[in-house]
Amino acid sequence: MIALYELKGKNDRRYSLFSWRARMALRHKGLDFETLPVLLSDKAVIEFSGGKTVPVMKDKDTVVRDSWKIAEYLENRYQDHPLFGGEIGRGVTQAFNTWADRALVPAMLQVIAADIHERVDTLDENYFRQTMEKVLRMTLEESRAKRDAALLQLGKVLEPLQATFKRQAFLAGVAAAYADYILLSVFQWARVMSPRELLAPEDPLCQWRERMLDLYDGFARNVPTA
Amino acid sequence: MIALYELKGKNDRRYSLFSWRARMALRHKGLDFETLPVLLSDKAVIEFSGGKTVPVMKDKDTVVRDSWKIAEYLENRYQDHPLFGGEIGRGVTQAFNTWADRALVPAMLQVIAADIHERVDTLDENYFRQTMEKVLRMTLEESRAKRDAALLQLGKVLEPLQATFKRQAFLAGVAAAYADYILLSVFQWARVMSPRELLAPEDPLCQWRERMLDLYDGFARNVPTA
Repeated sequence: MIALYELKGKNDRRYSLFSWRARMALRHKGLDFETLPVLLSDKAVIEFSGGKTVPVMKDKDTVVRDSWKIAEYLENRYQDHPLFGGEIGRGVTQAFNTWADRALVPAMLQVIAADIHERVDTLDENYFRQTMEKVLRMTLEESRAKRDAALLQLGKVLEPLQATFKRQAFLAGVAAAYADYILLSVFQWARVMSPRELLAPEDPLCQWRERMLDLYDGFARNVPTA
Repeated sequence: MIALYELKGKNDRRYSLFSWRARMALRHKGLDFETLPVLLSDKAVIEFSGGKTVPVMKDKDTVVRDSWKIAEYLENRYQDHPLFGGEIGRGVTQAFNTWADRALVPAMLQVIAADIHERVDTLDENYFRQTMEKVLRMTLEESRAKRDAALLQLGKVLEPLQATFKRQAFLAGVAAAYADYILLSVFQWARVMSPRELLAPEDPLCQWRERMLDLYDGFARNVPTA
Protein backbone atom coordinates (compact mmCIF):
# COMPACT_ATOMS: atom_id res chain seq x y z
CA MET A 1 0.00 0.00 0.00
CA ILE A 2 1.12 3.58 -0.68
CA ALA A 3 2.48 5.37 2.41
CA LEU A 4 2.17 9.13 2.95
CA TYR A 5 4.29 10.84 5.59
CA GLU A 6 2.71 14.02 6.89
CA LEU A 7 2.67 16.43 9.81
CA LYS A 8 0.57 15.66 12.84
CA GLY A 9 -0.77 18.18 15.35
CA LYS A 10 -2.73 17.94 18.60
CA ASN A 11 -5.51 15.31 18.58
CA ASP A 12 -3.89 13.71 15.55
CA ARG A 13 -4.87 16.63 13.30
CA ARG A 14 -3.26 16.34 9.84
CA TYR A 15 -2.56 19.91 8.90
CA SER A 16 0.17 20.11 6.26
CA LEU A 17 -1.45 21.89 3.33
CA PHE A 18 0.96 20.21 0.92
CA SER A 19 0.03 16.84 2.35
CA TRP A 20 -3.65 17.65 1.68
CA ARG A 21 -2.80 18.13 -1.99
CA ALA A 22 -1.29 14.63 -2.05
CA ARG A 23 -4.18 13.14 -0.03
CA MET A 24 -6.80 14.49 -2.44
CA ALA A 25 -4.75 13.46 -5.48
CA LEU A 26 -4.53 9.91 -4.14
CA ARG A 27 -8.29 9.78 -3.54
CA HIS A 28 -8.90 11.26 -7.00
CA LYS A 29 -6.91 8.37 -8.49
CA GLY A 30 -8.85 5.88 -6.38
CA LEU A 31 -5.68 4.71 -4.60
CA ASP A 32 -5.61 3.39 -1.05
CA PHE A 33 -2.92 4.75 1.20
CA GLU A 34 -1.84 4.83 4.81
CA THR A 35 -0.60 7.97 6.52
CA LEU A 36 2.35 8.14 8.87
CA PRO A 37 2.82 11.01 11.31
CA VAL A 38 5.87 13.28 11.35
CA LEU A 39 6.78 16.02 13.81
CA LEU A 40 8.25 19.35 12.74
CA SER A 41 10.88 18.93 15.43
CA ASP A 42 11.72 15.29 14.70
CA LYS A 43 12.06 14.25 11.09
CA ALA A 44 14.13 11.11 11.60
CA VAL A 45 11.27 9.06 10.19
CA ILE A 46 11.62 10.70 6.74
CA GLU A 47 15.43 10.65 6.64
CA PHE A 48 15.22 7.84 4.02
CA SER A 49 13.70 10.39 1.60
CA GLY A 50 16.88 12.45 1.44
CA GLY A 51 14.99 15.60 2.48
CA LYS A 52 13.47 17.33 5.46
CA THR A 53 10.05 18.31 4.16
CA VAL A 54 6.73 16.53 4.03
CA PRO A 55 4.81 15.15 2.29
CA VAL A 56 6.89 12.16 1.34
CA MET A 57 5.16 9.39 -0.59
CA LYS A 58 6.37 5.83 -0.86
CA ASP A 59 4.85 3.63 -3.55
CA LYS A 60 6.56 0.26 -3.33
CA ASP A 61 10.20 1.11 -4.12
CA THR A 62 9.55 4.61 -5.37
CA VAL A 63 10.02 7.53 -2.98
CA VAL A 64 8.71 10.95 -4.03
CA ARG A 65 9.07 14.22 -2.12
CA ASP A 66 7.23 17.51 -2.77
CA SER A 67 3.49 17.73 -3.41
CA TRP A 68 3.85 18.82 -7.05
CA LYS A 69 6.24 15.97 -7.81
CA ILE A 70 3.86 13.55 -6.11
CA ALA A 71 1.01 14.78 -8.32
CA GLU A 72 3.15 14.39 -11.44
CA TYR A 73 4.24 10.93 -10.37
CA LEU A 74 0.64 9.83 -9.80
CA GLU A 75 -0.48 11.28 -13.14
CA ASN A 76 2.31 9.51 -15.03
CA ARG A 77 2.06 6.20 -13.16
CA TYR A 78 -1.74 5.90 -12.92
CA GLN A 79 -3.44 7.03 -16.10
CA ASP A 80 -7.11 6.79 -15.05
CA HIS A 81 -8.88 9.82 -13.59
CA PRO A 82 -6.57 12.55 -14.89
CA LEU A 83 -5.43 15.25 -12.49
CA PHE A 84 -4.22 17.68 -15.16
CA GLY A 85 -5.78 16.66 -18.47
CA GLY A 86 -2.82 16.61 -20.83
CA GLU A 87 0.25 18.79 -21.14
CA ILE A 88 -1.60 22.12 -21.42
CA GLY A 89 -3.63 21.38 -18.31
CA ARG A 90 -0.46 20.29 -16.52
CA GLY A 91 1.27 23.56 -17.39
CA VAL A 92 -1.60 25.81 -16.38
CA THR A 93 -2.16 23.83 -13.18
CA GLN A 94 1.54 24.13 -12.30
CA ALA A 95 1.32 27.89 -12.84
CA PHE A 96 -1.69 27.96 -10.49
CA ASN A 97 0.32 25.92 -7.99
CA THR A 98 3.07 28.55 -8.03
CA TRP A 99 0.52 31.38 -7.71
CA ALA A 100 -1.14 29.67 -4.75
CA ASP A 101 2.18 29.16 -2.97
CA ARG A 102 3.40 32.72 -3.59
CA ALA A 103 0.20 34.75 -3.21
CA LEU A 104 -2.46 32.76 -1.39
CA VAL A 105 -0.49 30.72 1.16
CA PRO A 106 1.34 33.77 2.61
CA ALA A 107 -1.94 35.73 2.82
CA MET A 108 -3.62 32.85 4.68
CA LEU A 109 -0.62 32.33 6.94
CA GLN A 110 -0.84 35.91 8.18
CA VAL A 111 -4.40 35.19 9.31
CA ILE A 112 -3.99 31.78 11.00
CA ALA A 113 -0.35 31.55 12.18
CA ALA A 114 -1.19 32.13 15.85
CA ASP A 115 -4.08 29.65 15.68
CA ILE A 116 -1.80 27.03 14.13
CA HIS A 117 0.66 27.45 16.98
CA GLU A 118 -2.02 26.46 19.51
CA ARG A 119 -2.74 23.22 17.62
CA VAL A 120 0.66 21.86 16.59
CA ASP A 121 1.92 18.91 18.61
CA THR A 122 3.08 20.01 22.07
CA LEU A 123 6.59 18.83 21.18
CA ASP A 124 6.59 21.18 18.15
CA GLU A 125 5.47 24.37 19.87
CA ASN A 126 8.90 25.91 20.35
CA TYR A 127 10.13 24.86 16.94
CA PHE A 128 7.04 26.29 15.26
CA ARG A 129 7.25 29.59 17.12
CA GLN A 130 10.92 30.07 16.31
CA THR A 131 10.67 29.34 12.61
CA MET A 132 7.33 31.07 12.11
CA GLU A 133 8.32 34.30 13.84
CA LYS A 134 11.26 34.55 11.44
CA VAL A 135 8.94 34.05 8.45
CA LEU A 136 6.39 36.57 9.75
CA ARG A 137 9.03 39.00 11.02
CA MET A 138 6.90 39.50 14.12
CA THR A 139 5.82 37.54 17.17
CA LEU A 140 2.79 35.27 16.98
CA GLU A 141 1.05 37.61 19.41
CA GLU A 142 1.71 40.58 17.12
CA SER A 143 0.36 38.62 14.17
CA ARG A 144 -2.82 37.87 16.12
CA ALA A 145 -3.23 41.57 16.86
CA LYS A 146 -2.92 42.36 13.14
CA ARG A 147 -5.42 39.74 12.05
CA ASP A 148 -8.09 42.18 10.83
CA ALA A 149 -5.66 43.75 8.37
CA ALA A 150 -4.52 40.28 7.32
CA LEU A 151 -8.14 39.25 6.69
CA LEU A 152 -8.63 42.28 4.47
CA GLN A 153 -5.54 41.37 2.45
CA LEU A 154 -6.67 37.74 2.17
CA GLY A 155 -10.04 38.95 0.88
CA LYS A 156 -8.32 40.86 -1.91
CA VAL A 157 -6.35 37.79 -2.98
CA LEU A 158 -9.52 35.67 -2.95
CA GLU A 159 -11.79 38.07 -4.85
CA PRO A 160 -10.92 36.76 -8.35
CA LEU A 161 -11.64 33.23 -7.12
CA GLN A 162 -15.07 34.28 -5.85
CA ALA A 163 -15.75 35.69 -9.31
CA THR A 164 -14.48 32.44 -10.83
CA PHE A 165 -16.96 30.31 -8.90
CA LYS A 166 -19.83 32.43 -10.13
CA ARG A 167 -18.94 31.15 -13.61
CA GLN A 168 -17.85 27.56 -13.03
CA ALA A 169 -18.42 24.81 -10.46
CA PHE A 170 -14.78 23.80 -10.07
CA LEU A 171 -11.45 25.31 -11.13
CA ALA A 172 -11.07 22.30 -13.43
CA GLY A 173 -14.53 22.90 -14.94
CA VAL A 174 -17.46 20.56 -14.29
CA ALA A 175 -15.56 18.23 -11.95
CA ALA A 176 -12.71 18.66 -9.47
CA ALA A 177 -9.12 17.99 -10.46
CA TYR A 178 -5.68 18.89 -9.12
CA ALA A 179 -6.12 22.68 -9.36
CA ASP A 180 -9.08 22.34 -7.00
CA TYR A 181 -7.01 20.26 -4.58
CA ILE A 182 -4.35 22.98 -4.54
CA LEU A 183 -6.94 25.56 -3.55
CA LEU A 184 -8.70 23.25 -1.12
CA SER A 185 -5.41 22.55 0.64
CA VAL A 186 -5.19 26.17 1.78
CA PHE A 187 -8.72 26.19 3.17
CA GLN A 188 -8.28 22.76 4.71
CA TRP A 189 -5.12 23.97 6.49
CA ALA A 190 -7.24 26.79 7.96
CA ARG A 191 -10.17 24.52 8.72
CA VAL A 192 -8.04 21.97 10.58
CA MET A 193 -5.97 24.50 12.54
CA SER A 194 -8.11 27.61 13.13
CA PRO A 195 -11.53 27.97 14.76
CA ARG A 196 -12.27 31.05 12.68
CA GLU A 197 -14.79 30.63 9.83
CA LEU A 198 -13.34 32.53 6.88
CA LEU A 199 -16.19 32.23 4.36
CA ALA A 200 -19.81 33.36 4.60
CA PRO A 201 -22.38 30.77 3.42
CA GLU A 202 -23.46 32.92 0.45
CA ASP A 203 -19.85 33.28 -0.78
CA PRO A 204 -19.35 31.28 -4.02
CA LEU A 205 -16.01 30.16 -2.58
CA CYS A 206 -17.83 28.70 0.44
CA GLN A 207 -20.20 26.82 -1.84
CA TRP A 208 -17.26 25.47 -3.84
CA ARG A 209 -15.56 24.39 -0.60
CA GLU A 210 -18.71 22.54 0.45
CA ARG A 211 -18.66 20.67 -2.86
CA MET A 212 -15.01 19.80 -2.24
CA LEU A 213 -15.69 18.61 1.31
CA ASP A 214 -18.44 16.32 -0.06
CA LEU A 215 -16.04 14.50 -2.41
CA TYR A 216 -15.08 10.87 -1.75
CA ASP A 217 -17.72 10.34 0.95
CA GLY A 218 -16.73 13.48 2.84
CA PHE A 219 -13.05 12.52 2.96
CA ALA A 220 -11.81 16.05 3.75
CA ARG A 221 -14.86 16.94 5.84
CA ASN A 222 -14.68 14.07 8.30
CA VAL A 223 -11.35 14.76 9.98
CA PRO A 224 -10.37 16.26 13.34
CA THR A 225 -10.60 20.05 13.03
CA ALA A 226 -10.36 23.11 15.21
CA MET B 1 -12.38 34.54 -44.39
CA ILE B 2 -12.90 35.12 -40.66
CA ALA B 3 -13.45 38.77 -39.72
CA LEU B 4 -12.36 40.28 -36.41
CA TYR B 5 -13.73 43.64 -35.31
CA GLU B 6 -11.42 45.45 -32.92
CA LEU B 7 -10.52 48.87 -31.55
CA LYS B 8 -8.21 51.11 -33.49
CA GLY B 9 -6.09 53.93 -32.08
CA LYS B 10 -3.76 56.54 -33.56
CA ASN B 11 -1.55 55.27 -36.44
CA ASP B 12 -3.86 52.28 -36.77
CA ARG B 13 -2.67 50.80 -33.49
CA ARG B 14 -4.78 47.76 -32.47
CA TYR B 15 -4.91 47.97 -28.73
CA SER B 16 -7.89 46.06 -27.34
CA LEU B 17 -6.40 43.49 -25.00
CA PHE B 18 -9.38 41.21 -25.51
CA SER B 19 -8.92 41.43 -29.25
CA TRP B 20 -5.30 40.35 -28.80
CA ARG B 21 -6.54 37.18 -27.09
CA ALA B 22 -8.68 36.43 -30.17
CA ARG B 23 -5.87 37.36 -32.58
CA MET B 24 -3.41 34.99 -30.96
CA ALA B 25 -6.01 32.21 -30.69
CA LEU B 26 -6.71 32.54 -34.43
CA ARG B 27 -3.00 32.36 -35.24
CA HIS B 28 -2.61 29.39 -32.88
CA LYS B 29 -5.30 27.57 -34.87
CA GLY B 30 -3.59 28.50 -38.13
CA LEU B 31 -6.64 30.44 -39.33
CA ASP B 32 -6.45 33.42 -41.66
CA PHE B 33 -8.48 36.45 -40.68
CA GLU B 34 -9.01 40.07 -41.59
CA THR B 35 -9.38 42.80 -38.98
CA LEU B 36 -11.90 45.62 -39.11
CA PRO B 37 -11.46 48.80 -37.09
CA VAL B 38 -14.01 50.04 -34.55
CA LEU B 39 -14.04 53.29 -32.59
CA LEU B 40 -14.99 53.49 -28.93
CA SER B 41 -17.24 56.43 -29.80
CA ASP B 42 -18.85 54.86 -32.87
CA LYS B 43 -19.90 51.24 -32.68
CA ALA B 44 -22.40 51.24 -35.54
CA VAL B 45 -20.20 48.80 -37.42
CA ILE B 46 -20.72 46.08 -34.78
CA GLU B 47 -24.45 46.67 -34.26
CA PHE B 48 -25.13 43.40 -36.11
CA SER B 49 -23.51 41.54 -33.20
CA GLY B 50 -26.25 42.56 -30.76
CA GLY B 51 -23.69 44.06 -28.39
CA LYS B 52 -21.45 47.06 -27.88
CA THR B 53 -18.14 45.46 -27.04
CA VAL B 54 -15.25 44.21 -29.12
CA PRO B 55 -13.89 41.83 -30.14
CA VAL B 56 -16.62 40.49 -32.40
CA MET B 57 -15.71 37.59 -34.64
CA LYS B 58 -17.62 36.57 -37.77
CA ASP B 59 -16.92 33.13 -39.20
CA LYS B 60 -19.19 32.70 -42.24
CA ASP B 61 -22.69 32.91 -40.67
CA THR B 62 -21.55 32.58 -37.08
CA VAL B 63 -21.12 35.74 -34.99
CA VAL B 64 -19.37 35.44 -31.63
CA ARG B 65 -18.81 38.22 -29.09
CA ASP B 66 -16.50 38.18 -26.05
CA SER B 67 -12.93 36.92 -26.17
CA TRP B 68 -13.58 33.87 -23.96
CA LYS B 69 -16.55 32.81 -26.08
CA ILE B 70 -14.45 33.28 -29.23
CA ALA B 71 -11.76 30.99 -27.77
CA GLU B 72 -14.36 28.37 -26.88
CA TYR B 73 -15.91 28.62 -30.34
CA LEU B 74 -12.54 28.16 -32.04
CA GLU B 75 -11.65 25.22 -29.80
CA ASN B 76 -14.95 23.46 -30.52
CA ARG B 77 -15.08 24.25 -34.23
CA TYR B 78 -11.40 23.70 -35.11
CA GLN B 79 -9.99 20.67 -33.32
CA ASP B 80 -6.33 20.91 -34.38
CA HIS B 81 -3.81 22.80 -32.23
CA PRO B 82 -5.73 22.76 -28.92
CA LEU B 83 -5.99 25.99 -26.95
CA PHE B 84 -7.09 24.37 -23.68
CA GLY B 85 -6.23 20.67 -23.85
CA GLY B 86 -9.45 19.01 -22.76
CA GLU B 87 -12.06 19.89 -20.16
CA ILE B 88 -9.67 20.22 -17.22
CA GLY B 89 -7.41 22.55 -19.15
CA ARG B 90 -10.44 24.55 -20.29
CA GLY B 91 -11.64 24.97 -16.71
CA VAL B 92 -8.27 25.99 -15.27
CA THR B 93 -7.65 28.35 -18.21
CA GLN B 94 -11.07 29.97 -17.68
CA ALA B 95 -10.22 30.47 -14.01
CA PHE B 96 -6.96 32.12 -15.06
CA ASN B 97 -8.94 34.29 -17.48
CA THR B 98 -11.12 35.51 -14.61
CA TRP B 99 -8.07 36.11 -12.39
CA ALA B 100 -6.37 38.11 -15.15
CA ASP B 101 -9.44 40.26 -15.70
CA ARG B 102 -10.05 40.91 -11.99
CA ALA B 103 -6.49 41.22 -10.64
CA LEU B 104 -4.03 41.88 -13.44
CA VAL B 105 -5.96 44.09 -15.88
CA PRO B 106 -6.98 46.65 -13.21
CA ALA B 107 -3.40 46.76 -11.88
CA MET B 108 -2.03 47.40 -15.38
CA LEU B 109 -4.72 49.96 -16.16
CA GLN B 110 -3.67 52.08 -13.19
CA VAL B 111 -0.19 52.26 -14.71
CA ILE B 112 -1.02 52.97 -18.36
CA ALA B 113 -4.42 54.73 -18.45
CA ALA B 114 -2.98 58.19 -19.16
CA ASP B 115 -0.65 56.79 -21.83
CA ILE B 116 -3.57 55.01 -23.51
CA HIS B 117 -5.48 58.29 -23.66
CA GLU B 118 -2.72 59.88 -25.72
CA ARG B 119 -2.89 57.08 -28.28
CA VAL B 120 -6.60 56.38 -28.78
CA ASP B 121 -8.10 57.71 -32.01
CA THR B 122 -8.53 61.49 -31.87
CA LEU B 123 -12.29 60.99 -32.22
CA ASP B 124 -12.26 58.78 -29.08
CA GLU B 125 -10.33 61.08 -26.76
CA ASN B 126 -13.31 62.62 -24.98
CA TYR B 127 -15.18 59.34 -24.76
CA PHE B 128 -12.15 57.57 -23.33
CA ARG B 129 -11.46 60.28 -20.76
CA GLN B 130 -15.06 60.35 -19.54
CA THR B 131 -15.48 56.60 -19.15
CA MET B 132 -11.96 55.98 -17.82
CA GLU B 133 -12.08 58.68 -15.16
CA LYS B 134 -15.25 57.05 -13.78
CA VAL B 135 -13.49 53.67 -13.67
CA LEU B 136 -10.35 55.10 -12.04
CA ARG B 137 -12.30 57.49 -9.78
CA MET B 138 -9.70 60.13 -10.54
CA THR B 139 -8.58 62.27 -13.48
CA LEU B 140 -6.08 60.88 -15.97
CA GLU B 141 -3.62 63.49 -14.75
CA GLU B 142 -4.03 62.28 -11.16
CA SER B 143 -3.50 58.70 -12.31
CA ARG B 144 -0.27 59.73 -14.03
CA ALA B 145 0.93 61.37 -10.83
CA LYS B 146 0.25 58.14 -8.92
CA ARG B 147 2.04 55.91 -11.39
CA ASP B 148 4.92 54.93 -9.09
CA ALA B 149 2.51 53.52 -6.53
CA ALA B 150 0.61 51.78 -9.33
CA LEU B 151 3.85 50.22 -10.60
CA LEU B 152 4.58 48.88 -7.14
CA GLN B 153 1.13 47.31 -6.95
CA LEU B 154 1.50 45.82 -10.44
CA GLY B 155 4.82 44.30 -9.38
CA LYS B 156 3.12 42.53 -6.47
CA VAL B 157 0.48 41.05 -8.77
CA LEU B 158 3.18 39.89 -11.21
CA GLU B 159 5.56 38.35 -8.68
CA PRO B 160 3.99 34.84 -8.73
CA LEU B 161 4.19 34.88 -12.53
CA GLN B 162 7.88 35.72 -12.41
CA ALA B 163 8.34 32.72 -10.11
CA THR B 164 6.28 30.62 -12.54
CA PHE B 165 8.56 31.39 -15.48
CA LYS B 166 11.57 30.28 -13.50
CA ARG B 167 9.99 26.81 -13.50
CA GLN B 168 8.33 26.57 -16.91
CA ALA B 169 8.74 28.11 -20.37
CA PHE B 170 5.04 28.86 -20.94
CA LEU B 171 1.95 28.93 -18.74
CA ALA B 172 0.68 26.00 -20.81
CA GLY B 173 3.95 24.09 -20.27
CA VAL B 174 6.43 23.48 -23.07
CA ALA B 175 4.49 25.42 -25.72
CA ALA B 176 2.15 28.41 -25.67
CA ALA B 177 -1.61 27.96 -25.50
CA TYR B 178 -4.60 30.13 -24.59
CA ALA B 179 -3.49 30.88 -21.01
CA ASP B 180 -0.34 32.44 -22.45
CA TYR B 181 -2.41 34.54 -24.87
CA ILE B 182 -4.48 35.84 -21.96
CA LEU B 183 -1.34 36.99 -20.19
CA LEU B 184 0.29 38.30 -23.35
CA SER B 185 -2.80 40.40 -24.10
CA VAL B 186 -2.17 42.52 -21.01
CA PHE B 187 1.46 43.16 -21.90
CA GLN B 188 0.61 43.74 -25.55
CA TRP B 189 -1.98 46.34 -24.51
CA ALA B 190 0.78 48.12 -22.60
CA ARG B 191 3.31 47.66 -25.39
CA VAL B 192 1.03 49.11 -28.06
CA MET B 193 -0.21 52.04 -25.99
CA SER B 194 2.52 53.06 -23.55
CA PRO B 195 6.14 54.04 -24.17
CA ARG B 196 7.15 52.80 -20.72
CA GLU B 197 9.12 49.53 -20.59
CA LEU B 198 7.67 47.53 -17.71
CA LEU B 199 10.02 44.55 -17.62
CA ALA B 200 13.77 44.40 -17.13
CA PRO B 201 15.63 42.09 -19.55
CA GLU B 202 16.67 39.70 -16.77
CA ASP B 203 13.05 39.32 -15.55
CA PRO B 204 11.75 35.79 -16.36
CA LEU B 205 8.50 37.48 -17.42
CA CYS B 206 10.40 39.56 -19.95
CA GLN B 207 12.04 36.44 -21.36
CA TRP B 208 8.64 34.73 -21.61
CA ARG B 209 7.24 37.82 -23.39
CA GLU B 210 10.10 37.69 -25.89
CA ARG B 211 9.23 34.06 -26.62
CA MET B 212 5.61 35.10 -27.14
CA LEU B 213 6.55 37.97 -29.45
CA ASP B 214 8.58 35.53 -31.55
CA LEU B 215 5.57 33.27 -32.22
CA TYR B 216 4.06 33.06 -35.71
CA ASP B 217 6.88 34.96 -37.40
CA GLY B 218 6.81 37.81 -34.90
CA PHE B 219 3.06 38.35 -35.31
CA ALA B 220 2.62 40.29 -32.06
CA ARG B 221 6.06 41.93 -32.29
CA ASN B 222 5.67 43.49 -35.72
CA VAL B 223 2.79 45.90 -35.11
CA PRO B 224 2.61 49.66 -34.61
CA THR B 225 3.52 50.39 -30.98
CA ALA B 226 4.15 53.32 -28.70
